[in-house]
Amino acid sequence: MEQSLPYDNRIDSESSDQVVNPWEVSAKDGGKIDYDKLIDKFGCKRLDESLIDRVERLTGRQPHKFLRRGVFFAHRDFNEILDAYESGERFYLYTGRGPSSEALHLGHLIPFMFTKYLQEAFKVPLVIQLTDDEKFMWKNLTVEESERLARENARDIIACGFDVTKTFIFSDFDHVGGAFYKNMVKVSKCVTLNKAKGIFGFSGEDHIGKLSFPAVQAAPSFPSSFPHLFPGMDKLRCLIPCAIDQDPYFRMTRDVAPRLGYSKPALIESSFFPALQGENGKMSASDPNSAIYVTDTAKDIKNKINKAKSGGHQFSEDQHNLGADLEKDIPFKYLSVFLENDSELELVRKQYGEKKGNMQTGDVKKRVTEILTEIVERHRRARAAVTDEMVEAFMAVRPLPSMFE
Amino acid sequence: MEQSLPYDNRIDSESSDQVVNPWEVSAKDGGKIDYDKLIDKFGCKRLDESLIDRVERLTGRQPHKFLRRGVFFAHRDFNEILDAYESGERFYLYTGRGPSSEALHLGHLIPFMFTKYLQEAFKVPLVIQLTDDEKFMWKNLTVEESERLARENARDIIACGFDVTKTFIFSDFDHVGGAFYKNMVKVSKCVTLNKAKGIFGFSGEDHIGKLSFPAVQAAPSFPSSFPHLFPGMDKLRCLIPCAIDQDPYFRMTRDVAPRLGYSKPALIESSFFPALQGENGKMSASDPNSAIYVTDTAKDIKNKINKAKSGGHQFSEDQHNLGADLEKDIPFKYLSVFLENDSELELVRKQYGEKKGNMQTGDVKKRVTEILTEIVERHRRARAAVTDEMVEAFMAVRPLPSMFE
Repeated sequence: MEQSLPYDNRIDSESSDQVVNPWEVSAKDGGKIDYDKLIDKFGCKRLDESLIDRVERLTGRQPHKFLRRGVFFAHRDFNEILDAYESGERFYLYTGRGPSSEALHLGHLIPFMFTKYLQEAFKVPLVIQLTDDEKFMWKNLTVEESERLARENARDIIACGFDVTKTFIFSDFDHVGGAFYKNMVKVSKCVTLNKAKGIFGFSGEDHIGKLSFPAVQAAPSFPSSFPHLFPGMDKLRCLIPCAIDQDPYFRMTRDVAPRLGYSKPALIESSFFPALQGENGKMSASDPNSAIYVTDTAKDIKNKINKAKSGGHQFSEDQHNLGADLEKDIPFKYLSVFLENDSELELVRKQYGEKKGNMQTGDVKKRVTEILTEIVERHRRARAAVTDEMVEAFMAVRPLPSMFE
Repeated sequence: MEQSLPYDNRIDSESSDQVVNPWEVSAKDGGKIDYDKLIDKFGCKRLDESLIDRVERLTGRQPHKFLRRGVFFAHRDFNEILDAYESGERFYLYTGRGPSSEALHLGHLIPFMFTKYLQEAFKVPLVIQLTDDEKFMWKNLTVEESERLARENARDIIACGFDVTKTFIFSDFDHVGGAFYKNMVKVSKCVTLNKAKGIFGFSGEDHIGKLSFPAVQAAPSFPSSFPHLFPGMDKLRCLIPCAIDQDPYFRMTRDVAPRLGYSKPALIESSFFPALQGENGKMSASDPNSAIYVTDTAKDIKNKINKAKSGGHQFSEDQHNLGADLEKDIPFKYLSVFLENDSELELVRKQYGEKKGNMQTGDVKKRVTEILTEIVERHRRARAAVTDEMVEAFMAVRPLPSMFE
């Protein structure tokens, strides 16, 4: 199925090559991430048209715009998940978030928006891991602060519209233990220190908590980690929607799974949502000017988009004669991620990106500002409506009797 | 208080030096363990007469024979525990067992017999950790088998006579999670991979589960790991009775404690109970002829003691003229550990170990056989009386309201 490179060939060296791992994403020499190279290196596959067509056929609805536009662009065994689904089997979804910051930006919402679509389209249960333990270990946060951020982030996640009858949100500090801990230990027993160093690049000066953590992120890939959700369903397959920087965790998980008698989790992986200043990495929660936050006002959004890196021309004559460089145009990139209407997007692509068009940079910025403002305001309203009781309900350890309906 | 050697100086090299760590105990060149050297190397202290006298004064009873005979011979901060106790503070005891085998031998019972004495003499609560996760990770056992062995071993431990109103027995697979997991993660964050390698000798081919485990053994040293037992008692000190091969775990724990705002656990440490074939290590559960098991019959015990390494002389004339070499005499060693009566022991020491005595090897073997048979039969009766309900009662997560009475 996939390339079986030795792990050492996959280490991100400290050369000027692009670096993509769960803690660092940076392009070669400040350029753009080369996703083709990343697919080769990681050994995953490109999500091609035929798979997207299959999704449309199987779900009876138009595939999500993040599929149509290539935001989710790579996978591992997604075809097998569709095979199984077609033959009447079900699966479950697993995604997560490391709660290091109070305010989420639009890049953080992308996997959740997409996961919500998958949950609705395939009618499947979903587990969402909040890795408060990870953030405590990697960041300068107390346990209590990590736990608080996990619950604040849970509100944002719930605001994306998940179905409480099909969704279990948990934090590691709450949930590690019992069957989940057994799976952590089983995974840990199968991964040597050398292998962990090869996959994650850990050094001798890293603390042993970091060495322990990959098993925590691996455990939710196995249904037996959730006896309250999936009793007697040890063969239920798992599909993980995530950004491609999380691939190392699941490469390790997939490597270990057969030795534990478990199914390998399948993956569907997104590219990084570009920063406002340009597309050479992912947006950073620690640089407020690099991203649109769900807490930004309409005015903030307008100002940020106006300052965003453009591929258009300052003078309308140049713009008309040359067309914008869409590859470098962040407002257009944002539009192509968030604009629902395919024909409107195609129109902008032509009128702005090609010669002799009649759209200026300002027009595109205005349109994307409208769309993002609407998304952010909708999110803010939805988040304000999330009560403590709803958070409790999503995080309660409980069966989900109608999870496949 | 203690020597602050850099960890690297404490690594057991692969030379012919003695090796003492939680997984290997072997003397230099097949000789005897040099406990003075071990104390120097580990940086703990010898348990001297003045401390034993203080124990007698504070508890108002004769110190346990394991103290009088130097079976427990080393400590860390035991004097501080006694200071605190004298000024009216209480503490709690923590000990444990790695459940790798069904049948315990007498060496396994020693820390439990001693801990029972400490619990009674000081009127303090006790937590007993069954490290089923450790045994799963180090041995060729399934999770289920490790869990079963933990419960079987719990029966043997309960048979030692612990007070259920003051004792909480737990297995890691049951109990890791919540406050306990938070302390694991806090400890892990303070220990670098290099430090763990220095303390425990882990190599790149060891699996990451081994790297994670020291934090599991550290966590019970802190009262906040047991919110059901010690709510609001974060300053309660912990005393750990254990064999000295466990010292590396608690050296690490003590190093980390102040950085977490926690008290360092104190330790009281035993030497190794010698194998029947001679005193160059500890008894091994994997070699049935090296030890007296609690499942041995009277006949087994008699046969094993008869074959044990002796320091006496074959001919009674030599024995009378020379006396036995007590340093090499395993039956006498066993007698000096298990015979309650000090004056009888002194008599044997003279009549057997000195010139012109009137005791032969056979006499000593007969006496120790009687004593061990009695201990083993008492244990077997006590173990048979341990019901499933009693195991449940000791292992129930519950407060212990009369734990200091």
